[in-house]
Amino acid sequence: MTDQTPSAVRRMPDPSGKYAPFPPIDLPDRQWPSQRIAQPPRWLSTDLRDGNQAIVDPMDAVKKNRFFDLLVEVGLKEIEVGFPSAGATEFDFISGLVKSGRIPDDVMVQVLTQSREDLIRTSFASLDSARAAIVHLYNAVSPAWREIVFGMTRDEVRGIAVRGAEVMADETEKRPNTDWHFQYSPETFSTAELDFSIEVCAAVMEVLQPTAERPIILNLPATVEAATPNIYADQIEYFCRNLPNRERAVISLHTHNDRGTGVAAAELGLMAGADRIEGCLFGNGERTGNCCLVTVALNMYTQGIDPRLDFSDIDRVIETVEYCNQLPVHERHPYGGDLVFTAFSGSHQDAIKKGFAAQEQQNDERWRVPYLPIDPADLGRTYEAVIRVNSQSGKGGFAWVLEQDQGLKLPKRMQADFSRHVQALADSQSRELGAADIWEAFREAYHVQTENKHFQLVDYEERRAADGSRLFTGTIEVDGESQSVSGRGNGLISSVLSTIEDAFGLSLEVADYTEHALGTGRDARAAAYLECRDADGRTIWGVGIDEDVATASVRAVLSAANSAAA
Amino acid sequence: MTDQTPSAVRRMPDPSGKYAPFPPIDLPDRQWPSQRIAQPPRWLSTDLRDGNQAIVDPMDAVKKNRFFDLLVEVGLKEIEVGFPSAGATEFDFISGLVKSGRIPDDVMVQVLTQSREDLIRTSFASLDSARAAIVHLYNAVSPAWREIVFGMTRDEVRGIAVRGAEVMADETEKRPNTDWHFQYSPETFSTAELDFSIEVCAAVMEVLQPTAERPIILNLPATVEAATPNIYADQIEYFCRNLPNRERAVISLHTHNDRGTGVAAAELGLMAGADRIEGCLFGNGERTGNCCLVTVALNMYTQGIDPRLDFSDIDRVIETVEYCNQLPVHERHPYGGDLVFTAFSGSHQDAIKKGFAAQEQQNDERWRVPYLPIDPADLGRTYEAVIRVNSQSGKGGFAWVLEQDQGLKLPKRMQADFSRHVQALADSQSRELGAADIWEAFREAYHVQTENKHFQLVDYEERRAADGSRLFTGTIEVDGESQSVSGRGNGLISSVLSTIEDAFGLSLEVADYTEHALGTGRDARAAAYLECRDADGRTIWGVGIDEDVATASVRAVLSAANSAAA
Repeated sequence: MTDQTPSAVRRMPDPSGKYAPFPPIDLPDRQWPSQRIAQPPRWLSTDLRDGNQAIVDPMDAVKKNRFFDLLVEVGLKEIEVGFPSAGATEFDFISGLVKSGRIPDDVMVQVLTQSREDLIRTSFASLDSARAAIVHLYNAVSPAWREIVFGMTRDEVRGIAVRGAEVMADETEKRPNTDWHFQYSPETFSTAELDFSIEVCAAVMEVLQPTAERPIILNLPATVEAATPNIYADQIEYFCRNLPNRERAVISLHTHNDRGTGVAAAELGLMAGADRIEGCLFGNGERTGNCCLVTVALNMYTQGIDPRLDFSDIDRVIETVEYCNQLPVHERHPYGGDLVFTAFSGSHQDAIKKGFAAQEQQNDERWRVPYLPIDPADLGRTYEAVIRVNSQSGKGGFAWVLEQDQGLKLPKRMQADFSRHVQALADSQSRELGAADIWEAFREAYHVQTENKHFQLVDYEERRAADGSRLFTGTIEVDGESQSVSGRGNGLISSVLSTIEDAFGLSLEVADYTEHALGTGRDARAAAYLECRDADGRTIWGVGIDEDVATASVRAVLSAANSAAA
Repeated sequence: MTDQTPSAVRRMPDPSGKYAPFPPIDLPDRQWPSQRIAQPPRWLSTDLRDGNQAIVDPMDAVKKNRFFDLLVEVGLKEIEVGFPSAGATEFDFISGLVKSGRIPDDVMVQVLTQSREDLIRTSFASLDSARAAIVHLYNAVSPAWREIVFGMTRDEVRGIAVRGAEVMADETEKRPNTDWHFQYSPETFSTAELDFSIEVCAAVMEVLQPTAERPIILNLPATVEAATPNIYADQIEYFCRNLPNRERAVISLHTHNDRGTGVAAAELGLMAGADRIEGCLFGNGERTGNCCLVTVALNMYTQGIDPRLDFSDIDRVIETVEYCNQLPVHERHPYGGDLVFTAFSGSHQDAIKKGFAAQEQQNDERWRVPYLPIDPADLGRTYEAVIRVNSQSGKGGFAWVLEQDQGLKLPKRMQADFSRHVQALADSQSRELGAADIWEAFREAYHVQTENKHFQLVDYEERRAADGSRLFTGTIEVDGESQSVSGRGNGLISSVLSTIEDAFGLSLEVADYTEHALGTGRDARAAAYLECRDADGRTIWGVGIDEDVATASVRAVLSAANSAAA
């Protein structure tokens, strides 16, 4: 047997010689696992920088402006707009944006620069005439970069950061009309020696002399995510506890998602003491992307914390982001994906339906609908899209769709009856069923508003007899041939039942009956549901829909008769 | 100004009345933050169950079989194949698979059933004649489900689980020819009272009497992800520490990704003491999906731990998964996405290039290429795909592409010269540049293998004079007109330079010169790079490629002459 199983042939190389486990952080008294996120961080969008540099077709100026406007509209107050020294196109866009007057007073743009004098001066020049701006200096500090990329000692690497800071200080003196803010990133922080990162940051602070009132932003990138997210949190807590003059720095997180835990690292990093998060909408950015700002913000929202970012029209945000990045938001992306509020499973659909019903009954607005961590309406989505039906679905879903689509509220036992019909259809179609499919299946199953049925009501009248009984007289087409028929009972339904028994020999007995209005006002119609037993004790359901409540009942009886005669 | 900024209009409702913060777990002496993942868990794929029930078009039998075979090939030993009581199609597939003989001896299939007698018995029936199988019983235990969905007390909910376990015990007695294993899930574990989950699980264990040798699987679902992943880890550690007879249970994790932290929750859950992970390839599953097994496995791989799952041909895995689910693997999905090993940024490209070079030099196989957390070759991907070039790229990337594509190793200063040409092209094209674009730009910039250039070498010979100097005599077409020319120097290059100065009045001086072989063996050619200064001190680069090393040098001089004359 093993010969036949390809799994016997292992081809993946043994990782043990090639990859080493990430060394743990020595922080036995770590505090972050007991902390909670209680307020939103400062947010920085790097969609126009880290995001833009990682897409196949970088944005042109039209797209960049459109994205910038979206970010402002969503509520971002700090926006990294590019890398001015990368080329003329980039410089001109940034310079043009600054001069356009399109940056609101409460929004600061940020630009990134490597720590080289000419590049730093170019970066300041791109921001000429800005009201306020953040200049973001970086150099890589971790051993692999020092040794492989630069061939430099620690002192040399620290020196690069210090000289960059000196050029920044010099530029700000020359340009007194802008409110300058500084940001420094020890790039590759997550794979660097913590004490060395602190040493370099402290040296930069020494040059720039931040104060508690005008702090420097120290941004600590997981340039490449290299460990489980608790390790990043340990690193952040260690950094915060050991940085001299901690109060003079805003600690900023910049995570990537190489291990699929970029959002988690950002959240645990906040718990560990950070003040600010850099990321992109829907997690764009180098390789696996940055931390998704939408996800982190809405995660806070669902904990009762106002994130101060507005995704109340999430589909419009998605539309712009997809247009600018030319990358899709995945169907399963938290909060934004097409399928994330969709339940195909019957038991899930049933629970959601009950949750919505309970929501309508309760006396507060507390959200506790099963399987939905957020109210889709808060994101501008509608309930109707939540429940979709395929062959894996159960009766709850079909009933929900009929209620949403047609206003029909099927009795519970009837849902079970109807589910057999839909299940058969779903199995035979091997595809998702739309609301139209379900309505069609319903009409076929119960002979509602269909042509060519066996019994078809033409017209009828009903009179009360002297003894209090009801007399039904009507015209019914039987396979297209009109017949005049009549019968007597103690109510309308029983008189119709006795009519079809007398005229056609069909014996049906009422087991249950419900009726409800369809819609409201003058155009309201009625839906009647009739549960019958035939002579063999089989349950047969009938449905009638009509402008008139009485006629709906008559139609329901004929519906059951059609099923019984089939 | 505020009137113009749409951000002033906040529309998202205040979340504080609608959503409550998740209550913390009282576990001040938690141990998991100091733990490390040291060995792979047991893996369970639920692609054919949780995954299949959440896709728009559920798989037909052909797709299910194809997916099953893939899972076996990848190395899965436990595979949840469906929900037999959901319908005839599902039952027939499972029953057919069991009887097909296609389940290897070391693989167990698992089926899911709600805790209702008829459904449990149907589930056992679907596995008739299986060698071994896991029957997975579940019922929801959390308050929202108890109250909203079922309207039941705790005792009633526990009773449902106990009665289900009793039916399972009864079925296994009736079916002694299969090696039965039990799994119980307190569904919605992550939002349930921990002590109640433990109480229900203990009651189920009481019925099924697992032993340390034949343990029950207790699967603890984050049915809906409702808190940061550290909370799930706290829940898992609490559960493991307080479950009676812990050694008789395999603790299994089943996370969802509603907050984008499903992978993190699974990893921290392992650190908290769990033994097993349920998930799907590339994170398929209800709504935002399950934990991605590929990511968790390869995360371990990059820490030197053999995950015992084989993704050495990840593109073939992706192809099958995308075909069966009819859902794409996102471009940024860790390890699998199209863009995750791609560097567009020049500084990243430069660092990666140096990393690969260092890798070739070092004496061990330790992987430490900047920006690449895993060797793409371990996943069956090639280096060539790693570096792509757009207008955000710098010189490192162009040089890398030329080296990979044409074998050309440009001197560093020449990379800077060439980058101006490519940058201009990238800016004007506003699109990603392919290797062909870059090669075309290179040929145009340096007049290599192009027609219609000003100076074109026809033939030449070189002789050594009696005084040791070299005499160059050759035929050069100037704008299509052949001219015989000659010149003298102390070497080949200087003799050609004096020739073009004498014949055409172009004065160039050599600043640097390098040459290398292109390819190996008899078909090897040579590439020569010549850095010159013209009379104004401008730097001009020339490139020559030829089968003959000497001719390559001559061509390099003429290349520089063409640029100087342009």
